[in-house]
Amino acid sequence: LSAGAFLACDWGTTNLRAWVVGAGGSVQGYRAFPQLGVSRLAAGQAAECFRDEIRPAMEAEGLPALMCGMIGSTLGWVTAPYLTCPASLEDLRQGLISVEDGPPTRIVPGLRGPGVTGASDVMRGEETQILGWVSLEPERARGRQLVCHPGTHAKWALVEDGRIVRFVTAMTGELFDVLRKHSVLKTTDAPEHLEPFLEGVRAAGDGDGLASRLFSVRARVVADGKDADTTSEYLSGLLIGAEVASAPRLLGVELDGPVQLIGDIGLCRWYEKALATRGITAHLCDGDMAVLAGLKALQQGASA
Amino acid sequence: LSAGAFLACDWGTTNLRAWVVGAGGSVQGYRAFPQLGVSRLAAGQAAECFRDEIRPAMEAEGLPALMCGMIGSTLGWVTAPYLTCPASLEDLRQGLISVEDGPPTRIVPGLRGPGVTGASDVMRGEETQILGWVSLEPERARGRQLVCHPGTHAKWALVEDGRIVRFVTAMTGELFDVLRKHSVLKTTDAPEHLEPFLEGVRAAGDGDGLASRLFSVRARVVADGKDADTTSEYLSGLLIGAEVASAPRLLGVELDGPVQLIGDIGLCRWYEKALATRGITAHLCDGDMAVLAGLKALQQGASA
Repeated sequence: LSAGAFLACDWGTTNLRAWVVGAGGSVQGYRAFPQLGVSRLAAGQAAECFRDEIRPAMEAEGLPALMCGMIGSTLGWVTAPYLTCPASLEDLRQGLISVEDGPPTRIVPGLRGPGVTGASDVMRGEETQILGWVSLEPERARGRQLVCHPGTHAKWALVEDGRIVRFVTAMTGELFDVLRKHSVLKTTDAPEHLEPFLEGVRAAGDGDGLASRLFSVRARVVADGKDADTTSEYLSGLLIGAEVASAPRLLGVELDGPVQLIGDIGLCRWYEKALATRGITAHLCDGDMAVLAGLKALQQGASA
Repeated sequence: LSAGAFLACDWGTTNLRAWVVGAGGSVQGYRAFPQLGVSRLAAGQAAECFRDEIRPAMEAEGLPALMCGMIGSTLGWVTAPYLTCPASLEDLRQGLISVEDGPPTRIVPGLRGPGVTGASDVMRGEETQILGWVSLEPERARGRQLVCHPGTHAKWALVEDGRIVRFVTAMTGELFDVLRKHSVLKTTDAPEHLEPFLEGVRAAGDGDGLASRLFSVRARVVADGKDADTTSEYLSGLLIGAEVASAPRLLGVELDGPVQLIGDIGLCRWYEKALATRGITAHLCDGDMAVLAGLKALQQGASA
């Protein structure tokens, strides 16, 4: 393995994905370790786990390693302090935290910025994907771009000249998950059909009064005779529709141009449909491609 | 027991409370049956349960009975069709559903009205409390009044000349419950301290972007060093604050006069504090008093 090769890890709460990247930048190995998500690690276990399980499994014992995500949180390996927005790829690179002797093993810092409520807002992992997308598609990222990373804690970011200027989180994915598993809005189906999803998007209106709009998930079934089999799509459409309506406003921008979606492509496609109801075009970028591009760009500069 | 005596039941999803009301209107017996909430009943079990368990336990075998709440839903005894708003106590009385031969045993219908999203909105049980309060405090209920019934599914109702004109539900209590039990915002404490509650109310702002504001519950701890022990109060304040900000707007009224709170007094006190931050006075009415007043008023008229 040549000097430029490295082990890239996206080490999040519920999953760890690792790639061996060759000196030329091509992927030479990939594995997911869902049982090693940060939430499954005992305190202080990350270093040992990385050395004794991940490096051998990837046949990457002597390689430098670069990792992003919740592994840099208080629940992870060491706390990589949040950088404050605005932040570029170069800022992330300056903020890399070394965690081991031997082959350089580093963690990408998360970002913080002012939130909607007066409290801070934070991200860990998405910064690498968003700025990875910038390095992957520099032409499209030029100027000022509105970026959305759907997920458990969705992030909307304003990117200007290759920097994340500010961002806002929406707990859309987690709300969907806890409501359909544990509330009166219970449903076991995964969203599948477009029409009830779009009914939900329309029901989201301008996103105001979400706790009230959510009750319509139940009322449309018990009072209006809608099929309970469509609850999953309607709930998803309502939550995503409310996010699409509110997040740009909270970010202080108009939703008047294309939105760059980065993340799980299947989930991005639902956001694309919600945006289309407002006449907004979406561009899609796969989250794996983005995180790998980000880690490569950071590693190249850091080892240069 | 004289001819005017009856068995009054508030038979909801998670609890059944029953009172023996004497001919003069005084309470002669009370029991709660938490194990007999509608959600615990097997299909078709309500009639037998009422005859074999509740009547004997209350020593009320020969009495007329009147019950309100989810016992009138598809999950309960029989479905008492929703009446459409506006609705008065007299309308409820006309809509009572008889469910048994022998001593008159009747169920109060729920209400429906247009919801925020285009779907209907519904209530079952709160109509008896709200109109019970009207019968209990006719002077205060005169003219046009904004009424709030906090709870799992909080109801805000506009009452005009003794009729519920329209209403809106907010799933505030259920959101609080599922988020603190099952989400990343997890906390086991019950709200206790005022200051972090008011911090949450302030963080609710105008209630827009709730899915984003909710993330501040976590961010204020991990990024701003707030004590995780205050999460319960902050989350409660954020959700109640958002409801207080949004519900009157969704109902098409200004929050510019006193609000009548009806329900659990401990919970009503938190709403009172949230309203006070907006300079709004609250009047409180205990939910047990209200439901009993409603059932009495309905029974008197029905047996007259």
